[in-house]
Amino acid sequence: MHFTLQKKDEKTKARAGELKTDHGTIQTPIFMPVGTAGTVKGVHQHELDKEINAQIILGNTYHLYLKPGLEVIEGAGGLHKFNGWNKPILTDSGGYQVYSLSGQRKIKEAGVKFQSHHDGSYHFFTPERAIDIQRTIGADIIMAFDECTPYPCDYAYAKKSMHMTHRWLKRCFDQMDRTAPKYGYEQALFPIVQGSVYEDLRERSAEKIASFDAVGNAIGGLSVGEPDEELYKATDLVCGILPEEKPRYLMGVGTPVNILECIALGVDMFDCVMPTRNARHGMLFTSEGIINIKNKKWEMDFSPLDPNGTATVDQVYSKSYVRHLIRSNEFLGFQIASIHNLAFYLALVTEARTRILDGTFSEWKDKMVVKLANRL
Amino acid sequence: MHFTLQKKDEKTKARAGELKTDHGTIQTPIFMPVGTAGTVKGVHQHELDKEINAQIILGNTYHLYLKPGLEVIEGAGGLHKFNGWNKPILTDSGGYQVYSLSGQRKIKEAGVKFQSHHDGSYHFFTPERAIDIQRTIGADIIMAFDECTPYPCDYAYAKKSMHMTHRWLKRCFDQMDRTAPKYGYEQALFPIVQGSVYEDLRERSAEKIASFDAVGNAIGGLSVGEPDEELYKATDLVCGILPEEKPRYLMGVGTPVNILECIALGVDMFDCVMPTRNARHGMLFTSEGIINIKNKKWEMDFSPLDPNGTATVDQVYSKSYVRHLIRSNEFLGFQIASIHNLAFYLALVTEARTRILDGTFSEWKDKMVVKLANRL
Repeated sequence: MHFTLQKKDEKTKARAGELKTDHGTIQTPIFMPVGTAGTVKGVHQHELDKEINAQIILGNTYHLYLKPGLEVIEGAGGLHKFNGWNKPILTDSGGYQVYSLSGQRKIKEAGVKFQSHHDGSYHFFTPERAIDIQRTIGADIIMAFDECTPYPCDYAYAKKSMHMTHRWLKRCFDQMDRTAPKYGYEQALFPIVQGSVYEDLRERSAEKIASFDAVGNAIGGLSVGEPDEELYKATDLVCGILPEEKPRYLMGVGTPVNILECIALGVDMFDCVMPTRNARHGMLFTSEGIINIKNKKWEMDFSPLDPNGTATVDQVYSKSYVRHLIRSNEFLGFQIASIHNLAFYLALVTEARTRILDGTFSEWKDKMVVKLANRL
Repeated sequence: MHFTLQKKDEKTKARAGELKTDHGTIQTPIFMPVGTAGTVKGVHQHELDKEINAQIILGNTYHLYLKPGLEVIEGAGGLHKFNGWNKPILTDSGGYQVYSLSGQRKIKEAGVKFQSHHDGSYHFFTPERAIDIQRTIGADIIMAFDECTPYPCDYAYAKKSMHMTHRWLKRCFDQMDRTAPKYGYEQALFPIVQGSVYEDLRERSAEKIASFDAVGNAIGGLSVGEPDEELYKATDLVCGILPEEKPRYLMGVGTPVNILECIALGVDMFDCVMPTRNARHGMLFTSEGIINIKNKKWEMDFSPLDPNGTATVDQVYSKSYVRHLIRSNEFLGFQIASIHNLAFYLALVTEARTRILDGTFSEWKDKMVVKLANRL
């Protein structure tokens, strides 16, 4: 797996690059749709490919480990074979869901004991186990097992947690070295910078993470409730320390505005449940601003869902029809809105890339962040 | 609108025909997917067309009248324009939902007063109003406003109700004559035979309905809980009375076996929620029998969902994957199973038609009804 930095923007810290994997090349900056349980909710794999232009999707280790379970995924020959998505897959380590979804969990140096949210059964994740599981799932990009601190988080806890995350990281790399890919293609481990919103901790963590010389690096512990300024400040600080020649992945971010601002700070990869989760509540992101399709305002609007949209659903369905579907809790409404939002996110990062390559990113970004925040 | 009888099977009463409408020709026998609220649940319109090969779909007057409401549908220029389905649409009269879904309803000679299941608001449907609403929805085929008697139903009530349905039918035809299509294409009224499971009533009702010389005729009040023998007996009796040169539509039927048996009795058109509703519970109809995809048996079965299936989903997704999706309540599982089941129903009636045309229907049907009832 290899990252090539193709162009650096002159007015911002934005970059365009290419990450080569055994399942294909990812052009950055990129947004990665979240496929929690081996499926991006409401979206067929061929729609991800042809309508949304996704280049890489996420899987959630916690969910896949519980259902369908590792035996099934390994039986299929890995997640790509299981769900029929043949492009790259990144899996998180399971840590985030363990902290946020589990009824009971106990974090110790050895690892984390937790209860399944399905049936209350007990499970134990360690850094080593998280690597083994991701090896079995067959992710192209494996994420380190870390603790994602909440917001707000007191300094003492953030510091203690960060150090444990660093010790866990060493164990993750050791386990990667001790094990081999199961399905014949390369799997790379991305370590994760933590440190909450504390500059000295973020600095120290970024330096530590950089020292591992991984194929790519991630920034975690953000987009957990902190104000946007904190998000941008920490991202800027960390991007300044992480090596330039490696891709930078900002985990769980964010709104279209967040994404453009963080591209300008030097981030290459993003993921977020927002486009699909908000779609199910009728929130549509468009190049002219945000639409709440449930509003009365759209009831008699028979114009295409998004005349500027790149997906087929944008042209063949009207605002009025999609409003009706979402208000009636019809599956098709969630499907249309999900495809629309994901296609919009992908078109946005694709245009950002084009703008970086042709040198017009900065002006375009400044105009876009105003429009994107509009409420239509 | 015109029906052409193309071929009569020699060993059974099965027929092949063509119903020409302003939105295209329907080749019979045909199955019509149910698009309750202007959407076949979980299925895109282009999937109905290209994957499922649907030729006509249903809309439910009761649901569409309440949501999105007539103003919206008329504003769009009718249901075809509203939902983007450009082939024929049939609407029921709303009566069935009024009887089965409404909390409160009062049936009188004038019409039926009922409460919305959404908000408890009061509404009043009459035969005239049911025609007006269906004119506004823009159905190609409009169904008469009738009373669908439950099963079991005592003789006296069935008789009284049948006579009222006949009086209502006269009012429906009168209202059709007094009104014109709203969107420039022809709309035809199909009357409905009632009479519960009583032979003399069914006979009398079929004769009455036949006397109206409508473009097509329907058989209602079946598939409401009666045993299959009663369904077949009543269908056979009524088909023997309804004119041969007009299409016969058996409402709300049924399983794949029911459909083949009733084609053999002379039915041309079917609709049923079973393929989509059962799909959402993991029941898949296949040419080898019925699969409950939730069963442990399919957990490690990585073979295609249905190797004999005609839809793309049948080949690109495995049984194991679809089992996982349905058990995890993932939208995509419901989508895949719905497309599969509908494509299977359409492929089944299409093959029935081919067999009728080439004279091999009877033997094929006898073999198929055994296989179709298998539990795999």
